[in-house]
Amino acid sequence: MKKIEMTEAIILAKKSAKMSWEALAEKVGLSTTFVTSACLGMNSLKKEPAEKLCEVLGLDEEVAITLQEYPNKTWDFTIPQDPLVYRLYEVVGVYGETIKEIVGEKFGDGIMSAIDFSLDIYKEENPLGDRVVITMNGKFLPYKSW
Amino acid sequence: MKKIEMTEAIILAKKSAKMSWEALAEKVGLSTTFVTSACLGMNSLKKEPAEKLCEVLGLDEEVAITLQEYPNKTWDFTIPQDPLVYRLYEVVGVYGETIKEIVGEKFGDGIMSAIDFSLDIYKEENPLGDRVVITMNGKFLPYKSW
Amino acid sequence: MKKIEMTEAIILAKKSAKMSWEALAEKVGLSTTFVTSACLGMNSLKKEPAEKLCEVLGLDEEVAITLQEYPNKTWDFTIPQDPLVYRLYEVVGVYGETIKEIVGEKFGDGIMSAIDFSLDIYKEENPLGDRVVITMNGKFLPYKSW
Amino acid sequence: MKKIEMTEAIILAKKSAKMSWEALAEKVGLSTTFVTSACLGMNSLKKEPAEKLCEVLGLDEEVAITLQEYPNKTWDFTIPQDPLVYRLYEVVGVYGETIKEIVGEKFGDGIMSAIDFSLDIYKEENPLGDRVVITMNGKFLPYKSW
Amino acid sequence: MKKIEMTEAIILAKKSAKMSWEALAEKVGLSTTFVTSACLGMNSLKKEPAEKLCEVLGLDEEVAITLQEYPNKTWDFTIPQDPLVYRLYEVVGVYGETIKEIVGEKFGDGIMSAIDFSLDIYKEENPLGDRVVITMNGKFLPYKSW
Amino acid sequence: MKKIEMTEAIILAKKSAKMSWEALAEKVGLSTTFVTSACLGMNSLKKEPAEKLCEVLGLDEEVAITLQEYPNKTWDFTIPQDPLVYRLYEVVGVYGETIKEIVGEKFGDGIMSAIDFSLDIYKEENPLGDRVVITMNGKFLPYKSW
Amino acid sequence: MKKIEMTEAIILAKKSAKMSWEALAEKVGLSTTFVTSACLGMNSLKKEPAEKLCEVLGLDEEVAITLQEYPNKTWDFTIPQDPLVYRLYEVVGVYGETIKEIVGEKFGDGIMSAIDFSLDIYKEENPLGDRVVITMNGKFLPYKSW
Amino acid sequence: MKKIEMTEAIILAKKSAKMSWEALAEKVGLSTTFVTSACLGMNSLKKEPAEKLCEVLGLDEEVAITLQEYPNKTWDFTIPQDPLVYRLYEVVGVYGETIKEIVGEKFGDGIMSAIDFSLDIYKEENPLGDRVVITMNGKFLPYKSW
Amino acid sequence: MKKIEMTEAIILAKKSAKMSWEALAEKVGLSTTFVTSACLGMNSLKKEPAEKLCEVLGLDEEVAITLQEYPNKTWDFTIPQDPLVYRLYEVVGVYGETIKEIVGEKFGDGIMSAIDFSLDIYKEENPLGDRVVITMNGKFLPYKSW
Amino acid sequence: MKKIEMTEAIILAKKSAKMSWEALAEKVGLSTTFVTSACLGMNSLKKEPAEKLCEVLGLDEEVAITLQEYPNKTWDFTIPQDPLVYRLYEVVGVYGETIKEIVGEKFGDGIMSAIDFSLDIYKEENPLGDRVVITMNGKFLPYKSW
Repeated sequence: MKKIEMTEAIILAKKSAKMSWEALAEKVGLSTTFVTSACLGMNSLKKEPAEKLCEVLGLDEEVAITLQEYPNKTWDFTIPQDPLVYRLYEVVGVYGETIKEIVGEKFGDGIMSAIDFSLDIYKEENPLGDRVVITMNGKFLPYKSW
Repeated sequence: MKKIEMTEAIILAKKSAKMSWEALAEKVGLSTTFVTSACLGMNSLKKEPAEKLCEVLGLDEEVAITLQEYPNKTWDFTIPQDPLVYRLYEVVGVYGETIKEIVGEKFGDGIMSAIDFSLDIYKEENPLGDRVVITMNGKFLPYKSW
Repeated sequence: MKKIEMTEAIILAKKSAKMSWEALAEKVGLSTTFVTSACLGMNSLKKEPAEKLCEVLGLDEEVAITLQEYPNKTWDFTIPQDPLVYRLYEVVGVYGETIKEIVGEKFGDGIMSAIDFSLDIYKEENPLGDRVVITMNGKFLPYKSW
Repeated sequence: MKKIEMTEAIILAKKSAKMSWEALAEKVGLSTTFVTSACLGMNSLKKEPAEKLCEVLGLDEEVAITLQEYPNKTWDFTIPQDPLVYRLYEVVGVYGETIKEIVGEKFGDGIMSAIDFSLDIYKEENPLGDRVVITMNGKFLPYKSW
Repeated sequence: MKKIEMTEAIILAKKSAKMSWEALAEKVGLSTTFVTSACLGMNSLKKEPAEKLCEVLGLDEEVAITLQEYPNKTWDFTIPQDPLVYRLYEVVGVYGETIKEIVGEKFGDGIMSAIDFSLDIYKEENPLGDRVVITMNGKFLPYKSW
Repeated sequence: MKKIEMTEAIILAKKSAKMSWEALAEKVGLSTTFVTSACLGMNSLKKEPAEKLCEVLGLDEEVAITLQEYPNKTWDFTIPQDPLVYRLYEVVGVYGETIKEIVGEKFGDGIMSAIDFSLDIYKEENPLGDRVVITMNGKFLPYKSW
Repeated sequence: MKKIEMTEAIILAKKSAKMSWEALAEKVGLSTTFVTSACLGMNSLKKEPAEKLCEVLGLDEEVAITLQEYPNKTWDFTIPQDPLVYRLYEVVGVYGETIKEIVGEKFGDGIMSAIDFSLDIYKEENPLGDRVVITMNGKFLPYKSW
Repeated sequence: MKKIEMTEAIILAKKSAKMSWEALAEKVGLSTTFVTSACLGMNSLKKEPAEKLCEVLGLDEEVAITLQEYPNKTWDFTIPQDPLVYRLYEVVGVYGETIKEIVGEKFGDGIMSAIDFSLDIYKEENPLGDRVVITMNGKFLPYKSW
Repeated sequence: MKKIEMTEAIILAKKSAKMSWEALAEKVGLSTTFVTSACLGMNSLKKEPAEKLCEVLGLDEEVAITLQEYPNKTWDFTIPQDPLVYRLYEVVGVYGETIKEIVGEKFGDGIMSAIDFSLDIYKEENPLGDRVVITMNGKFLPYKSW
Repeated sequence: MKKIEMTEAIILAKKSAKMSWEALAEKVGLSTTFVTSACLGMNSLKKEPAEKLCEVLGLDEEVAITLQEYPNKTWDFTIPQDPLVYRLYEVVGVYGETIKEIVGEKFGDGIMSAIDFSLDIYKEENPLGDRVVITMNGKFLPYKSW
């Protein structure tokens, strides 16, 4: 079974079960974002949460095994096209240099890890229109000399 | 005066004054990220903070006027190359579809605005290595039918 | 059912029924442009118009459900090739900076939303050759400082 | 004198004169959009309006001559990056096929000319936020057989 | 039936009938180039020639209907690779600016339409080697001011 | 002297002399297209016409020598952007395969040379709007086996 | 039968017959390189060698007919990736300008034809390591004026 | 002194001395192709030929030193545009797979080195038109297992 | 059998046999890296190790034959996307010029062969986090003059 | 002072002093590779080694300050062109998937850091031709779930 078939199987089962990603993640005991990314084939789950997820959705073991495989992370377009995803790319373009300046000032020369990393999405209710709040949290990795 | 000359003038003055972006932003009364991005030529300041900033750094009026001009937001590489900025691009590639799924689940069909938007950077101290925390906060804009 | 299969099913049914997009949109109670874009898989319909559209064309519920799903908006070529679509891209290239200048002058620093947005197409009869009139109407979103 | 030097000269003079594009266009007797695009080097003016424009702004004849030269229309990025201009590109991507369908239905097989063409920008006041209205008007050109 | 299937059907029937494009075009009453381009899916035929063509080649009505559909004009490589087609691209690169200069001199500021357009190919016999003669004939479209 | 400086010198002198490309070519004794392309740096002239051209325009010998140098033929954009030049590229995209079919039918397997080649531009007067007529004439080069 | 299916059929038959390209070419009476390129679908064979080749390999007439069809010459990557082919591309990059200088010096302004052209590959035995010798032989085509 | 300035100095001196590349190479005692490529900045010369070359052309020591520096080999376009160089690229595209097949057959799995490599250009006189003969000679490097 | 089918067959058999690449390589008598790359279709094996590998995994002769075929080395993205592979690409970008400087200093003008080449991967245990050690070993190939 | 000017100053001083990178690094007390990369503007030095380096080469304080600035790491071509650097890119293409497999087997799902990373270059003497040995050593970063 390939990751792409796994994703299709999960989405179909999730629709039948009328479960949200949030409810599914709660059952599995991990964050919504991480569970969703694993189901979309961009991360791997450990054995236990993989099996729990399949149990909740009534999926067979092949799905659980495929969830544990290490994914090849690739995406469709070098510049994303869907408006929601493009806006995130635009933010990187507009604020990338700013982030570099401020991280440099606060931490020294280095980067924010995208591996030792988590990402969460909240809904902030607001009478002028609700707001999407995305928080990225990555370990600072200093450049070393040797 | 062009934005690029303005940026050079500000960075030179900031070095001489030995001021951090954070201290500068505090004087101007806006967030560190926003003030930095305006100084790097990616946003415009209103008249008052522009003049305040020039006063603090001892820069002449031409800089203040240029800070108020509406910038053309462009960046150097369609795929960023500096490791710090690339990691942010990678996050968009790896988690873009996940974010779309979860925003869809929480808000309905629509996007997070990159215009009615703010971005902040914190340092989270951690004995295993400090962490960079980036928070994006953008208005949810629903797609409309007509 | 995928969006692409949905589009094929709708176009086949529309041909059999010898209905124009305009007539279809009128039945559904939305604008021609919006209904067409939803049928081509670039927008989602709410439950009621989706079901109405399927009723009019004699399509089953799966189509109605797929019409309600949130689309991934992607397109085939980064620079469009069909002459009609390329001309629109050319207009953006030739007049983009002009539009930026005039929007800046009339509204201040900001953009025209492509989400809180509508687009209509009229035929202007003219003895020297009929004219295509395309009107875009998008909310002005000012850049904010924070 | 090159078009790019002409544009710089005009913008400088316009700033000194504290004239808007709208006021300038009114003096010249052409639409705001067209005059702006000619000043930005993307269209040529006839002799009379070119001279009128230079008279109003106190610019010498070289500018008037350069305004009359036929421009090479080129732009900086195959995919525009400034958020305002990108949104227009996105509209072409999302609605291009829709426009093709509807123009085909209303006019037959052909295109909207981008040459025998005009474009106007209005401000629609709205208590929920003002709206940008862009109207394109181009001659329909039918494909011919021979 | 899709345009690509239509093309395959026509080419198969044409081979069986041992007809040249020239003979086919003569029967249909249009130029060789135009008929060929329609059969290759890059132009649409009106009802009568479409039916005539199918009658001549013994093809069923579905082909005739598909010939009348408005095509999406797209091509495989942004820079063509086949040597014959590449040479034409090279001509545009080498002589494009020259053509712009001379059209400007002869007609004023504007373009040659690629829509109100015809293209013909002749064989010029020559003892030093026969020559290919390609003639393009397009309406001059002047840029307008408004 | 570089080709680009040569071009600037010629265009300046041509403006002062108020000569058209056509008149210039007539003096030189070659076609308008070829002379223009050599002046724009895309072809080389033999000694005699190079000197004649400089004599007519009152340019010094350095220009005549540079006109005789073999040019590197390069152009600015892989896909041309100016509307006039783009239309020619579009013609190659839309009719490339058609031309390949018809040349194959008329001549056998081979190409039209872009080197043993000439190109001319005529103005066809027409009450419905004048037409641009471009004629390409290139030697047929058959593929050989060995 | 498509060229790609033809290639597969020939390679299969060639493996069964345990024939080298060299032996095959000898039977057909043409050079190894040309026969191989025709079998890979990049050139067409005349009737006689096409039929001879099929007779030798025991292939049916459809293959012989497909070998005679005029190919569309296209390749997979604009920059080749396989190390052997990339090295050839690198040679063009490193020595292209040098070749242009020397051809200009020896022949005048013009090119080496890639159509009236042959290419051969020899093995030069050498105690320090055998060497690959590739010889290209193309007609010189001078640029003409007209 | 940069390689590009070195090239300009050599070409100027070579013009004054009215020497061909061939004559220059003969004086230096290396092949025409190699000397030309070193003068164009794509290879380095050893001390002795570098000084000989400068002596012949009356150039100072800085040129001789720069000729000995190890060059960064880069070129202007990923796909070459000048017709002479493009034809070589086309040959790689059309015959690349053929060369791979035949080298595999003659030598086993491996490549032709582009480093332990030489390239020569001859003029083959021919009553039907002279021919350019390019010979590449590179060491065969077998892939190894380990 | 194609290389891609061979890879799938090997990976399936390897999973069933619960063998690591390391264990497999040991049985075959070659390095882990080389055996893995051959199984992934990027290198060819000689007859003996190919047959040994198939024996160990219980695969039939077709796999052994396909392992011996000379591969076309191509990869999916010109800029790799998977984070592990991208980091290697980034290293080439950041340290490429440095490596060129140091190789030049230690060896003279030339390159490290990627053909007469081996690559090994070790795990270096470390209390602060284990480390990946990649060693490349390639023959130095000096540029020659001729 | 910009990094690029710093690099030019260092290389000039290093030439005058006739020092190798290796000797320079030894004086500074860091590895050759790291010192070279910092001098080429791809890494920053701490205060002490920066000042030591300037002292050794007789460079003023501005160089020492610029060496301490955090660099923007960018490179010239997305696919490197110089043969030495290209070979490294090719290694990533050919062995990237292999490295991913083996790192996965040895360490689990994760990457080799390119930040907590060192790279060294040795010369391995060999009677069949000396060999370049490049060793990369990067911390393994496991993907985490959250």
